[in-house]
Amino acid sequence: MSEFDLIDIIRRHVGAARSDVRTGIGDDAAVVSVPPDHELVICTDTLVAGVHFPDSTDPADIGWKALAVNLSDLAAMGALPAWATLALTLPEPDARFVERLMQGFAQLANEHQMALIGGDTTRGPLTLSVTAHGIVSTGQALRRSDAKHGEVVFVTGTIGDAAGGLRILQSANPNAGNPGPDEQVLVARLNRPQARVAAGIALRDLASACIDISDGLLADLGHVATSSKLGIEIGEDCLPMSSALQNCFDAETCRDLQLFGGDDYELAFTIAEARADSMRATMEKLGCRVSRIGRVIEEPGIHVLDRDGRRRETSSKGWDHFR
Amino acid sequence: MSEFDLIDIIRRHVGAARSDVRTGIGDDAAVVSVPPDHELVICTDTLVAGVHFPDSTDPADIGWKALAVNLSDLAAMGALPAWATLALTLPEPDARFVERLMQGFAQLANEHQMALIGGDTTRGPLTLSVTAHGIVSTGQALRRSDAKHGEVVFVTGTIGDAAGGLRILQSANPNAGNPGPDEQVLVARLNRPQARVAAGIALRDLASACIDISDGLLADLGHVATSSKLGIEIGEDCLPMSSALQNCFDAETCRDLQLFGGDDYELAFTIAEARADSMRATMEKLGCRVSRIGRVIEEPGIHVLDRDGRRRETSSKGWDHFR
Repeated sequence: MSEFDLIDIIRRHVGAARSDVRTGIGDDAAVVSVPPDHELVICTDTLVAGVHFPDSTDPADIGWKALAVNLSDLAAMGALPAWATLALTLPEPDARFVERLMQGFAQLANEHQMALIGGDTTRGPLTLSVTAHGIVSTGQALRRSDAKHGEVVFVTGTIGDAAGGLRILQSANPNAGNPGPDEQVLVARLNRPQARVAAGIALRDLASACIDISDGLLADLGHVATSSKLGIEIGEDCLPMSSALQNCFDAETCRDLQLFGGDDYELAFTIAEARADSMRATMEKLGCRVSRIGRVIEEPGIHVLDRDGRRRETSSKGWDHFR
Repeated sequence: MSEFDLIDIIRRHVGAARSDVRTGIGDDAAVVSVPPDHELVICTDTLVAGVHFPDSTDPADIGWKALAVNLSDLAAMGALPAWATLALTLPEPDARFVERLMQGFAQLANEHQMALIGGDTTRGPLTLSVTAHGIVSTGQALRRSDAKHGEVVFVTGTIGDAAGGLRILQSANPNAGNPGPDEQVLVARLNRPQARVAAGIALRDLASACIDISDGLLADLGHVATSSKLGIEIGEDCLPMSSALQNCFDAETCRDLQLFGGDDYELAFTIAEARADSMRATMEKLGCRVSRIGRVIEEPGIHVLDRDGRRRETSSKGWDHFR
């Protein structure tokens, strides 16, 4: 099994056929066509075995997630996914492993009409680096730096589930081999994240600032606040929680997972209060839950209010156990 | 030193400022603008420590080479380099290492007016995966599959030098710590390849098929022949050889290094005989040496003629020691 045999396997899983791909896999580079009056949106995310996923992860989940985390970045910009490249580093040329990895990758690519147009296969410790390309009407990309004072802050879906799934996998749970339905839901949120692509595109005309929640809610809201030179205040009782998370952990653990856990791949965005109703109606049509969690304020930093409206201590010295 | 500190170092080495970069490093994704009537050319190449370069390699050389191998792919398509992303996986957040790595990367990026627009930093075994983007007038990209029967085959520069440099580094040469000028030339060809960007762009209107020599001359000509459904015949005495290579190795070793060694990052291309003089004149103006090495024939495969015009045995069973 040589590099070229592996490339043959990969070529059977290239996702959607697209007429804008002039030259796909097989030349020195791919050639694609960007429609007029559109800009190109580009992101890169890498998954390393043992760092971003346990070595025991199903290869199909690894392939899916490597693309999903990039789709989530495109979603946060409001971009329509188009093409991806995959740099795949493998310890050995294992055809069955690559076949299954690419099945997961192509399944998600097909869901979004995305084409794999190139990449590289190399020998080394298992690493997947995907560069995803999307398109957006000129000047319409959402940025994290455009939050405005007084806007309200929303998130899509539920928060903390993926971190709960990771906690379950990492725990020495004697039932780990036989997880209940709630555990399965949380682990699936970790292994098969659903990027909010349609929501991101719909938010382009509605939201001011947008980011995907990958590092953790507080960390990612911190990126919005810092780059917008403002602050954000959120209510910890406003954070949308799945019943699965609630059933698996005590209240304090749930709160920590929601505030500090990562890998949710939901969107957090700021929006003028006057546009919130219109946004809610749009999101309802898309079947995308949204929850209002806070407000953009002038005072820098991210401030968490408890159920009595009192600010929790969120200095860098607080809650360090999770960082 | 956190990921965010590393990103600060990287942000100081982003290469050229370009007005077509609407959003660079620092958001979920970058946003760039492709000029009208142009297509986008995209390639990805990965370098893994211990596989693609010795662990002892100067980090500045690693950074340079990670971009250079991608520039070479753009050159083979005749594309003008524009933007790159860098997925950098590091065993530990070593600021001095990253600083030097990025110096090498940015030095080459600046030479080609290229901008680093995004990427990812992750923890793991040292791996650099670069995705490079170039632009080309619509329909003008060179491909490896467009060779035509009867065309002549040329290469740029000299062939085999990088493989010679690798042989020197790998040998237990007692003078390894004090290499002579010829050895230094060959090792520099390995560590600091010069992608043939200007030559590739000039060849767009002249050559039919083009490829960069990364896997080795025979292997890469094989890609041209296979994808063009033709064969290629080359004369082993026609292969351009540097005096450095000639001075360091015996004739048979030189021949093997030239035919099978990789990492040259020169261009091999096919061209109608009637256009060869015009091409030579253009390349002379660019200061780019070109050598005629063979011809496109109908019979499939790559056929090597010795100095007496006899075909060498090049079946898959031959010369396996180098594969």
